[in-house]
Amino acid sequence: MQKPQYHVFVCTSSRINGQQKGYCFSKEGVDIVQRFMEEVDERALQDTVMITNTGCFGICSSGPIVVVYPEGVWYKEVTPDDVAEIVESHFENGQKVERLEIK
Amino acid sequence: MQKPQYHVFVCTSSRINGQQKGYCFSKEGVDIVQRFMEEVDERALQDTVMITNTGCFGICSSGPIVVVYPEGVWYKEVTPDDVAEIVESHFENGQKVERLEIK
Repeated sequence: MQKPQYHVFVCTSSRINGQQKGYCFSKEGVDIVQRFMEEVDERALQDTVMITNTGCFGICSSGPIVVVYPEGVWYKEVTPDDVAEIVESHFENGQKVERLEIK
Repeated sequence: MQKPQYHVFVCTSSRINGQQKGYCFSKEGVDIVQRFMEEVDERALQDTVMITNTGCFGICSSGPIVVVYPEGVWYKEVTPDDVAEIVESHFENGQKVERLEIK
């Protein structure tokens, strides 16, 4: 299989019992996933970027959380409006968005 | 924050609309998450291993899928009974479980 160059994990507060409840969900986690999918599609990055929604990362007070592997870059307090910048800067130009990074 | 040495993503077919439906879910994805949490707890690996449940990885016919970052190791057809071996071999001894690996 073709492994993604950037694998983006977006917390949507999806619990393993099917319930969706939590801070990232209440703060537009689902919109963030959808924005990532739209941006990746519009920029034809499907071969290099994979988007996956997740359950809780355990640092809810910094949410919504977005994690990018294999680099291990953690972004905090992401809004739907930040998504285009992450895709362009990080995935197209290789520059992390430092103002959102959890150090 | 302390980043995990091994970040384990387990597909539980969690959709962003809250519905939980899909191959990994039907094939014990939820049990696999719970086994990982138990094994990590029993072996006191909480500081090095983080477990996160996810939505679909898009290769359902190879499911249940487990992905380990930052290494980018993808495991296929994982069963709850495989979990102890993955934790012991991969996370305690640093040896991937080759029979389950997607190359």
